[in-house]
Order: sequence, then C-alpha cells, then structure tokens
Amino acid sequence: MRKNFGCRTWIFPEPVLIVGTYDKDGNANAMNAAWGGMYDDDKIILCLSKDHKTTENIREKGAFTVAFATEDTMVPCDYVGIVSANKVPDKLSKAGFTVTPSEFVDAPVINELPMAMECRLVRIDDDEHVIGEIVNVNADESVLGDNGKPDWRKLKPIAYDPVNFDYIAFSRKAGTAFKEGKALLS
Amino acid sequence: MRKNFGCRTWIFPEPVLIVGTYDKDGNANAMNAAWGGMYDDDKIILCLSKDHKTTENIREKGAFTVAFATEDTMVPCDYVGIVSANKVPDKLSKAGFTVTPSEFVDAPVINELPMAMECRLVRIDDDEHVIGEIVNVNADESVLGDNGKPDWRKLKPIAYDPVNFDYIAFSRKAGTAFKEGKALLS
Repeated sequence: MRKNFGCRTWIFPEPVLIVGTYDKDGNANAMNAAWGGMYDDDKIILCLSKDHKTTENIREKGAFTVAFATEDTMVPCDYVGIVSANKVPDKLSKAGFTVTPSEFVDAPVINELPMAMECRLVRIDDDEHVIGEIVNVNADESVLGDNGKPDWRKLKPIAYDPVNFDYIAFSRKAGTAFKEGKALLS
Repeated sequence: MRKNFGCRTWIFPEPVLIVGTYDKDGNANAMNAAWGGMYDDDKIILCLSKDHKTTENIREKGAFTVAFATEDTMVPCDYVGIVSANKVPDKLSKAGFTVTPSEFVDAPVINELPMAMECRLVRIDDDEHVIGEIVNVNADESVLGDNGKPDWRKLKPIAYDPVNFDYIAFSRKAGTAFKEGKALLS
C-alpha cells in the first residue's frame, strides 16, 4: 500500500551546496542551498530566493562558487544556512571559514571546503533561478584518489534529507553506473 | 594545494532519478537521470535531451513520475539508463518493472520503486529542461518511519558519483540540518 502526501519537496538525495560570493565591497559570504544541480554540460542551476544576500551578490559580481558540504565541515556548513549576512555581516569568519579569491571568477573559494565549482553568472530569471557557467572545478589534493580525480571516500560529502532534515553520510560503493544493468541485457 | 580540472559536471551528491512516462499508445517507459532537482516549492526540474523517448512521451502526455533509485533496485534502475525504449520497446518488463497508473497524472508509478513524485508538465524549454508541478508524492508503507513519513534508512536511496560513475549507498545520520550550526551562534 502506498501513502499519498500531496505536494512535497522530497527528493532523495538532495545535495548540500555552499554558495560563495563577494559583495560589492569584496566581503565574502556563503549560504547553504539544497535546491540545485546540473543544468547543462557546462552549467549549473541554483534555486535561491530574492531576499538572500547571496542573490544580491551574484547580481553584483556576476560570479559565485559552489562547494560541497562534507562530514568534517557539517557544523559551519549548517551555520551558514541558519544565519543571513544581512543580519550577521561576519558570518563567514564566525563559521570559521577563510577564503582565497578564485583564479577564474570574481568569487571566493572557501579554503575549508575541499572541492568547489567556480561559476560565471549566465542569468538570473524572474523566478530567481541562478544559471551559472562552470568555468572550473577545483579539489584539494587531500580528496583525490589514486586516479588523480576527486574520490567521494575522501571528500565525504553529505546529503540533505528534506523529510526529517537529516544530513546523511555515505558509506560504501553500492555499484557502478552503466555496468550493473548489463546483467539484464540479452 | 588545489588541483584544477576545468569545466566538469561533478556535483556531490547527484540523485538517481527514474523518470516514468507513457507513450501515446499507453506503453510505459522509464529512464535514469542524474540532472534534476527542486525548482520551486511545488516544482521539479529535469535536464533531459531531445532524443529521449521519455522527452517525447512527456510532450505527448503532459505528465511524468520521478522515483528514486534504491539499493535494492539498483540493477533495473541502471538498466533503464543503459537501453533506450526507441531500441528496446519492452525495456520496462526486461528490467522487471511493473506499473500502476498514477491516480493523479497520466503517467505510470513503478511498483518496484517505493517512493515517487507524480508530476504535471508545466513546460519544456528550448534547451530541453522539463519543469513539472509536483501534484503528489507517494511512498510505500514499507519505507515509512515511526512518524509516518518516508525514512531514508528504509528507502535506502542511492546517489550518483559523476566522477567515477559509482552508485553510493548511505549509512548513517551525520547530523541535523538547522541544528548543528547552532553551536556557532553566539
């Protein structure tokens, strides 16, 4: 038997995206967003709302970074989702985050978050969807696997559970995409 | 030290969304998509490409379902991402999937996938982004927690690793959103 819940925002899994921006005076900010993902081969979409300082900053600078919250950084990543820079201007330093300017776009790379996308704003539509071109993806050497690419076992990203607001940790490889299903090819 | 990778589609985590549709003759189909997420309080976005049978079906019927791949259903979920209904018309039955028509929209609910969104097409834009209104979310009683809501420990959703094409399993609660960060409030 299935139970119907009506309209809910329950996708599994949702990411925990930390969006980094500079304001017009060059002050770094970060916010926590779960509504975002790939939009095209070279683009990302974020669904933000108008009142975020981040949205204002993205309009101002035409750029942002998107880092992935990790087990080790869960507390500060959650914190930047609780408080607004409109009320706590120094929220980033209160979170314990420090930044380095991106080499590619006018946005901050948060040093404590080991992997991030550096994006150039393509457009913000009327409904406040931010579309960004992915100019570069960076990852700290500490989270690279033997093949030189990011390894989720080292990155330890977390997922967001929109039902009970859990952050969920990954544990193990369940299988390989484009391979498991071959068992059913005949 | 950070390593730069250029433009990559590497978001952690990405979901494994199984999109269910009917074609004009009422034949059920399903595909596997990682590029999608929440678009608004009551809307979802899927980034598909024009040549998918699924996109044609969504245009035809104005509806689709989005289920979440799970550990227990990984093999058939991967399979529907490997083969196209344009070439294998009975791919759904080959996957071992059976369907029940949605009570709410003209799209199939895949019986073997315990949780799904039932969506009405809002629009498909020029770049083949499908925007759907979430009319209902359903979940099998077997995946509900004590509070009567979906419990990821029972649902056992998997995530997609776009770097090495791993499917990743969740293991444990890492923390609680909007709570962990309170430690930093002063």
